[in-house]
Amino acid sequence: MKQEWRNFTGSHWTDDINVKDFIQANYTPYDGDQSFLEDPTDATNSLWDKVQKLQKQERENNGVLDMETSVVSGVTAYGPGYIDSEAKDLEKVVGLQTDKPLKRAFMPYGGIKMAEDACTTYGYTPDPALHKIFTDYHKTHNQAVFDAYTPEMKKARHNKIVTGLPDTYGRGRIVGDYRRVALYGIDFLIEKKKEDLAHCGSGIMTDDIIRIREEVSDQIRALQQMLKMAADYGFDISKPAANAREAVQWLYFGYLAAIKSQNGAAMSIGRISTFLDIYINRDLKEGSLTEKEAQELIDHLVLKLRMVKFARVPSYNQLFSGDPVWATLETAGLGLDGRHMVTKNDYRFLHTLENMGPAPEPNLTVLYSSRLPENYKKYAAYISVKTSSIQYENDDVMRTVWGDDYSICCCVSATQTGKEMQFFGARANLAKCLLYAINGGIDEKSGVQVGPAYKPVTSDVLDYDDVMAKYDVMMDWLAGLYVNILNLIQYMHDKYYYEAAEMALIDTDVRRTFATGIAGFSHVVDSLAAIKYAKVTPVRDENGVAVDFKIEGDFPRYGNDDDRADDIAVWLLKTFMKKLKKFHTYRDSEPTTSILTITSNVVYGKNTGTLPDGRPAWTPLAPGANPSYGAEKNGLLASLNSVAKLPYEYALDGISNTQTISPSALGHTEEEQSKNLVNVMDGYFNRGAHHLNVNVFGVDKLKDAMEHPEKPEYANFTIRVSGYAVKFIDLTKEQQLDVIARTCHGNM
Amino acid sequence: MKQEWRNFTGSHWTDDINVKDFIQANYTPYDGDQSFLEDPTDATNSLWDKVQKLQKQERENNGVLDMETSVVSGVTAYGPGYIDSEAKDLEKVVGLQTDKPLKRAFMPYGGIKMAEDACTTYGYTPDPALHKIFTDYHKTHNQAVFDAYTPEMKKARHNKIVTGLPDTYGRGRIVGDYRRVALYGIDFLIEKKKEDLAHCGSGIMTDDIIRIREEVSDQIRALQQMLKMAADYGFDISKPAANAREAVQWLYFGYLAAIKSQNGAAMSIGRISTFLDIYINRDLKEGSLTEKEAQELIDHLVLKLRMVKFARVPSYNQLFSGDPVWATLETAGLGLDGRHMVTKNDYRFLHTLENMGPAPEPNLTVLYSSRLPENYKKYAAYISVKTSSIQYENDDVMRTVWGDDYSICCCVSATQTGKEMQFFGARANLAKCLLYAINGGIDEKSGVQVGPAYKPVTSDVLDYDDVMAKYDVMMDWLAGLYVNILNLIQYMHDKYYYEAAEMALIDTDVRRTFATGIAGFSHVVDSLAAIKYAKVTPVRDENGVAVDFKIEGDFPRYGNDDDRADDIAVWLLKTFMKKLKKFHTYRDSEPTTSILTITSNVVYGKNTGTLPDGRPAWTPLAPGANPSYGAEKNGLLASLNSVAKLPYEYALDGISNTQTISPSALGHTEEEQSKNLVNVMDGYFNRGAHHLNVNVFGVDKLKDAMEHPEKPEYANFTIRVSGYAVKFIDLTKEQQLDVIARTCHGNM
Repeated sequence: MKQEWRNFTGSHWTDDINVKDFIQANYTPYDGDQSFLEDPTDATNSLWDKVQKLQKQERENNGVLDMETSVVSGVTAYGPGYIDSEAKDLEKVVGLQTDKPLKRAFMPYGGIKMAEDACTTYGYTPDPALHKIFTDYHKTHNQAVFDAYTPEMKKARHNKIVTGLPDTYGRGRIVGDYRRVALYGIDFLIEKKKEDLAHCGSGIMTDDIIRIREEVSDQIRALQQMLKMAADYGFDISKPAANAREAVQWLYFGYLAAIKSQNGAAMSIGRISTFLDIYINRDLKEGSLTEKEAQELIDHLVLKLRMVKFARVPSYNQLFSGDPVWATLETAGLGLDGRHMVTKNDYRFLHTLENMGPAPEPNLTVLYSSRLPENYKKYAAYISVKTSSIQYENDDVMRTVWGDDYSICCCVSATQTGKEMQFFGARANLAKCLLYAINGGIDEKSGVQVGPAYKPVTSDVLDYDDVMAKYDVMMDWLAGLYVNILNLIQYMHDKYYYEAAEMALIDTDVRRTFATGIAGFSHVVDSLAAIKYAKVTPVRDENGVAVDFKIEGDFPRYGNDDDRADDIAVWLLKTFMKKLKKFHTYRDSEPTTSILTITSNVVYGKNTGTLPDGRPAWTPLAPGANPSYGAEKNGLLASLNSVAKLPYEYALDGISNTQTISPSALGHTEEEQSKNLVNVMDGYFNRGAHHLNVNVFGVDKLKDAMEHPEKPEYANFTIRVSGYAVKFIDLTKEQQLDVIARTCHGNM
Repeated sequence: MKQEWRNFTGSHWTDDINVKDFIQANYTPYDGDQSFLEDPTDATNSLWDKVQKLQKQERENNGVLDMETSVVSGVTAYGPGYIDSEAKDLEKVVGLQTDKPLKRAFMPYGGIKMAEDACTTYGYTPDPALHKIFTDYHKTHNQAVFDAYTPEMKKARHNKIVTGLPDTYGRGRIVGDYRRVALYGIDFLIEKKKEDLAHCGSGIMTDDIIRIREEVSDQIRALQQMLKMAADYGFDISKPAANAREAVQWLYFGYLAAIKSQNGAAMSIGRISTFLDIYINRDLKEGSLTEKEAQELIDHLVLKLRMVKFARVPSYNQLFSGDPVWATLETAGLGLDGRHMVTKNDYRFLHTLENMGPAPEPNLTVLYSSRLPENYKKYAAYISVKTSSIQYENDDVMRTVWGDDYSICCCVSATQTGKEMQFFGARANLAKCLLYAINGGIDEKSGVQVGPAYKPVTSDVLDYDDVMAKYDVMMDWLAGLYVNILNLIQYMHDKYYYEAAEMALIDTDVRRTFATGIAGFSHVVDSLAAIKYAKVTPVRDENGVAVDFKIEGDFPRYGNDDDRADDIAVWLLKTFMKKLKKFHTYRDSEPTTSILTITSNVVYGKNTGTLPDGRPAWTPLAPGANPSYGAEKNGLLASLNSVAKLPYEYALDGISNTQTISPSALGHTEEEQSKNLVNVMDGYFNRGAHHLNVNVFGVDKLKDAMEHPEKPEYANFTIRVSGYAVKFIDLTKEQQLDVIARTCHGNM
């Protein structure tokens, strides 16, 4: 064993890269409670103060503190940078994306126009030389995608039946196994990648083999760059980390390489908690670290994750409101051997929300099971009640599919850490697709023929069978178009914006999923239920396009534990997933789907006309797999039961559900509230549900925060929206109103 | 009909791009003699004087007059440039590669190191900003290829069993149909490419479809750049050329776009002679042009082609000596309808060698058939006798395969103009491969195991069957390795150095050939004949590697019309071609091969040990399909007969044969010499031979030129070497000695 591996056990992981094996052989489950946790150190308080001041300046400065205009971002583009260059020693974990804290990097590879627009939006002027370089010399991903798009694709995109396509910036969602940097050091990782290269193909140079050989060479180059970047900060990461502080630092350098070179919407850091606990535990045992110092390391790492920023354009901010990064980080979960994987570190990470107050990033996620230690479930629920900053995902359903070392690569999408990557691709608006089916492919907003000119519904009253037949073929069209749009986006992304730094920390023989998504889910379900169970009469304009619907009679709605509606929901998910699977996918990746809109439900809704369920035109769709606003009439549990019926195996990319519970509905004391929240989640997840964003506050607080954002209590007021957390005051007014409009459960 | 198309006939070509149809419908065959030809104008003399002075300076300046160090070459990288900016009006055809005559452009896309080395070799310092851009921001073809090469490939390349791979610069050999710019104008071409894009794939986005869609978009962009480039020179090429001068100018702009954006070894201009004659003929009939002016146009176009230059490195110059460009240009040939295609213009092009003296470029090629008009055959032979500057290729064998509108894309390789492109890829050294078979894959020069470690020949005397069995499997290995090296080179070239400007002038639905090549041909044939018919005993070094061969007894040699040797030659070609065909080729291209070494026979020979035919180690191989030096004992005709036996259908990329005939062997007067040369060629080509480089001079002249290069008579002394023409004094001393060593036939 290397000196750095002293006191570690196990053997599989020492010869081959196998972090999972290392964790299973070395971690120490913790069943105790949170009483061991320590308060922040002075250094933490000082740094967090400084960062909060910068964040305040940033907010006052229109949301951006500083921007790069001449250096092209890259792993080694900058020398070292510090939060406070006068007091570098305070930082136990060093490394910034650029040379200054919160300064946003210039990232042109996804699209030079986007990069430039991001600058000019905030009053910065990018160096014209960069324009020439990334226009005349180097084509960007964005240009390449538009070179290949068909007119049909452009029309579908323009009319927003598909939206959020990663065609102007990084696709994100690839989680490098940053733990590898700590456990193995760069030299070993390079050696292994060189071995892979030597065994990459038999010598027959098909396009696939050539592509992967070039990619592995790029990965090796990226590893060499990481070495250089760390050296600039004074660290030699060629060898494994020798203690906890190095482990945190090495791991963070790996992540830093990713966020310096890519600007994907979601840049998760992954499942690092249990892993790091092993190092901390060893140091604690060796007496070289105190619990106070251990918490400080975690606090400082989290502090760095709270500072990750990208330069974005207004259209991006409309989709993903509040400047999210999805630096998603998991705690808890169970091992395949039946032991729970909760360690003290899983407490330490949640405790950062106490030590430094609530914050949207990192996107803290509890991999939930009713079999987790009661102490941990209660502590997490307590933090939820206090901060509304964490989300829960069902480890029991995910472990079956992805094993016990998966990470969440965005909000709800599991991916095997270091063994898998995802071709991410936004979502298709199935609600709009229903209108296309009714209107023969004519877009209800633009009046343009966007879908195929199939025969529209011409009857006075909508007939269920007629609509279903027409919807079926329109979904076929949309599924095919959508998959093919993504095929070309992923091809171009690999070609022009390959994630060498992240893929360097993932197995060469990688599993690839092809992640699609659904928007407008609940509205389609309710609309079909209305057509089936009530009497729906379209009101058509002079061109015969249905612009309104007269609904007579009652009908069941999704979100009330009523099988009449919920069966339609299950049918819809299964049907669309099966349709997606019919088509060729890039690099033979495995198609999956999610029911997840993040905050794009507002933009989708803005472009979707009145629906047969009575939802008015141009208003937000319900987010993710949430029931429609106002549909939930039977309380929280009934709503959760409806969502829990959706089969995870048909939505392996995740099923997002966001709920807001009035504190009083949960109980009168924090203790009682936490206990009840645990009960709610045990029941929900035992039914096979996948995900829950938990907010505990009342609508009045939201309204007050919207009207008085200046109140100090709202400075860090964080809420969970579909798939991520956000500071409420950072949302656009439109998004705030949407959040306020969502159902707040006043009772169970 | 558009006004620009007045007096043209035909209909197919007016709706669709079809230059061939336009030519067939409008050209005027000419059976007369050369008496109509005109002397150069004063403008021509003045410009040619100026260029010659610059060429002299260039030679005195180590072979390079000026180099760009900061502007990246591209279609619109420069504003207008002129030979003499004080007297722009002299130039009837305008356009330079850079801003100054003979100044070499900076072309980094093939490889930044090559581009920089080319500069530093000649004392120029490239802008360091370019290094950063083409290292950090934009990967080059060269870097990408080396990223994907296997160690075996690098070893094979390093040991030069494959050589001349286009992995550091452009692959070249793609002939845009530059005539299209003249006939249709850019607007129409863009419109047609947009139509193609609209019909490119059914919407299913497989990698192939995505790639071609992006390529067509790049082509459209290149067409728009051509428009801009021409506008900078004051011409609007959006519409078709309206007269002969415009036709020449438009066509040249198309070619200029190619040589501004690509630095392939061979950058042919193609089959333009008959096409341009149609425009000249119309102007002559309309009285808007005189014959003097017509010749001036052709002289000026040729003058421009004589000025094409690329920045090269010493290793390139060793392979392709004398700064060749292969601006190959065809005359004559027959139509599929049986009419010959000789026009007055075919005389005018050859006449440039009289008006401006001999010159290596453009690489003038006569598409020969015994059915060409006698007058033209005699005139061409007369020019050969006078200048040794032209080559002949058998139209009868090529027409059958490629139709009547093919161009020669390098020296000997036919390609359908505007309908086809070639993936070019240098050559495999079959002579060295024979030594590998004998030595069990060990390289006889480096002593390294390069080929597979098959059992070597261990007998004292070489046994024919034993050697043949071992050679067969070693050729299998070489063929597979070679094809796969080329697969990855072509993939990367498409990815990093796509020829958008040339492909914009070629049909979207393009035919792709995969051009391999053979070196050391005659030596393998003679060696196998020696082993079969004489007694060959290897002399082995201490490692058991055969370093010499003792040959006892006589054996037949290729080049004497002796079937015992020539049958082996046919067997060798067929066998290697069949082996090549076994392997997967990039983009399902059609594998072809050539027996063509250009001047690389010297470099190949330098790296090839003693062969069983008695050729000493490290001496030049015979070039192309030529018999070995000294092998030809039965005179010119017997030698030609041997070469003529090689079946063209197995070497569709061409079979190069270069012969030097003493003037006295052909006759006592120029008239007699021309007549006899025609007879020789009629006989040779009627036997199905493919190609002949004709030199008419004695060895004494070569020796004198080598010793006294300063004599004015040698300033433009041009000779045909394997596949192209070159100024003898521009060859390296080594190459000059090689040329002198070649057989000069003193009798028939």
